[in-house]
Amino acid sequence: MHARLAVGLDAGGTSSRAVLIDESGAVLGTGASGPANPVGGDREIALSNMALAFQRALGGIDPSEVGSVCVGTAGALSLTEEVREVSADLKRRFGTDCDVEVVSDAVIAFAAGSSAADGTVVVSGTGAVAFAIRDRTPALRSDGYGWLFGDAGSGFWLGREAVRAALRHIDGNGPGGRLVEAIIAAIAPDKRRSGALVAKCMADPPVRLARFAALVCEAADGGDPVAESIVARAVGHLAESVSYVVDRDLPIVMAGSLLTRPTPIAALLQERFRLVYPKAGISKATDPAIGAAWMAARVFVTDPADRARLHRQLAWR
Amino acid sequence: MHARLAVGLDAGGTSSRAVLIDESGAVLGTGASGPANPVGGDREIALSNMALAFQRALGGIDPSEVGSVCVGTAGALSLTEEVREVSADLKRRFGTDCDVEVVSDAVIAFAAGSSAADGTVVVSGTGAVAFAIRDRTPALRSDGYGWLFGDAGSGFWLGREAVRAALRHIDGNGPGGRLVEAIIAAIAPDKRRSGALVAKCMADPPVRLARFAALVCEAADGGDPVAESIVARAVGHLAESVSYVVDRDLPIVMAGSLLTRPTPIAALLQERFRLVYPKAGISKATDPAIGAAWMAARVFVTDPADRARLHRQLAWR
Repeated sequence: MHARLAVGLDAGGTSSRAVLIDESGAVLGTGASGPANPVGGDREIALSNMALAFQRALGGIDPSEVGSVCVGTAGALSLTEEVREVSADLKRRFGTDCDVEVVSDAVIAFAAGSSAADGTVVVSGTGAVAFAIRDRTPALRSDGYGWLFGDAGSGFWLGREAVRAALRHIDGNGPGGRLVEAIIAAIAPDKRRSGALVAKCMADPPVRLARFAALVCEAADGGDPVAESIVARAVGHLAESVSYVVDRDLPIVMAGSLLTRPTPIAALLQERFRLVYPKAGISKATDPAIGAAWMAARVFVTDPADRARLHRQLAWR
Repeated sequence: MHARLAVGLDAGGTSSRAVLIDESGAVLGTGASGPANPVGGDREIALSNMALAFQRALGGIDPSEVGSVCVGTAGALSLTEEVREVSADLKRRFGTDCDVEVVSDAVIAFAAGSSAADGTVVVSGTGAVAFAIRDRTPALRSDGYGWLFGDAGSGFWLGREAVRAALRHIDGNGPGGRLVEAIIAAIAPDKRRSGALVAKCMADPPVRLARFAALVCEAADGGDPVAESIVARAVGHLAESVSYVVDRDLPIVMAGSLLTRPTPIAALLQERFRLVYPKAGISKATDPAIGAAWMAARVFVTDPADRARLHRQLAWR
């Protein structure tokens, strides 16, 4: 008899990524494709991209051999009629005998950092949000309101604050330095006018400002005071978001590229959590597709100790 | 001999408005038409709309009888080549013998509140900006960076903060009350979910959020704590913008619909200015098209006392 197989899929606004594991925690295949937003977005495009990532992860393996599938995606905060439809569509597209569980991307992010059923996850990537997770379902939320209303402490937010600092400096109302010069050089090196910078940025979609997040992190690491101030405010916003939803005795998972990579924001936020929530275990999420695969494997790995062992096995990769 | 005639024109993003005056300060005609953004926008549309407003203000009077014209518009911060071109185009379109002076909308807003050559103007309408005016030209600026980066304390900003308060309240992270309920009722009365509110607002251009500014002002006047907090922060932002550019011995003009109408923001900002800049005369701008007309009349009203008298005459309207 084969080892039982599980597939996890992270369907995101940038790309879709699938991982095939067996019950021992071995990763047998991975596959990627284009963006997928099946709940609230273009479902047909999403289903095609997700099916492609799924097939690529399987290699030549027959879909009927897969024992469990879990998909994490934005918008699937609860089991609505739309989420049920997406789940049924995916089962057909994937060609599996098993059902396809569709959960919030916050749930697979949490699962990528903790095997607990309850806790807190804070995500900072292009956007930013914090969720209380109860029984592997989003319970309370804070922020995640997108670039117009929130995402405070996200990559978008960092980029926007960096441009604002450059605008203030150009008009003589704020300090300059390494970050401000890097922003001006990146946007409009030949036109040192605030109006020119605004016009250039307004020609792109607002979330494109997230591309400046790396400049902020680099400049802060290099001791630039403007960048350090932006980073400190980002950490403050993320900590505030967490404070609204946290249970201080439950695990806290840090997720999203700005909190899983070695950024100054991740370091300062982790330090703050350790001080303020000393009883909560703090961990960084690994790959959310791995979190989804572990979620899927729970269907046939039912013993709590075995589940925890599988989680550790996957996290060590 | 006829009394000498001057035309002022306020070319704005919402509409164009022209006023015909004579040297005694009598208003002989007014005319309005569509939006005009001749510097940096679609010049052909702008010229057509401005010519229509001009003709309507003149009634049957021959354009050659007009002795002076002044136009205020966004983007005309200095006398660039583009501004000179617009000026020449307008002279042709209007059919005047005299030249057409094209200045910043901040300059005519300042002139609508003060006959001085130097001072400070703070504008809060859909957007928000503060300028130091020197010799009737914008010298220093603070903010005016648009909805993506700034306009702190503007109508857009008030509306956005009101929606943010509603989002936080729906998710259990902030207080409710009259303003929050009014916002939910205005956007998505049937769907009390933060995601639904965000989606509804994202379907419109961001500046449409300025339509909620009136709700904020009303609720603050009614003692709603959430609205009062937003108003207090708006006043703080506008005062900060002014602090970067102000000369405390020169007149300060408050302009834009949120600062010229009887709003709580205008009342609190005026109070603050009186406390912090006791030597600066504080005034509210009247109609910016009247400011432009007074600017125009300066060409043949050259005596300082006569200019000041004409200014008072126009302000009394």
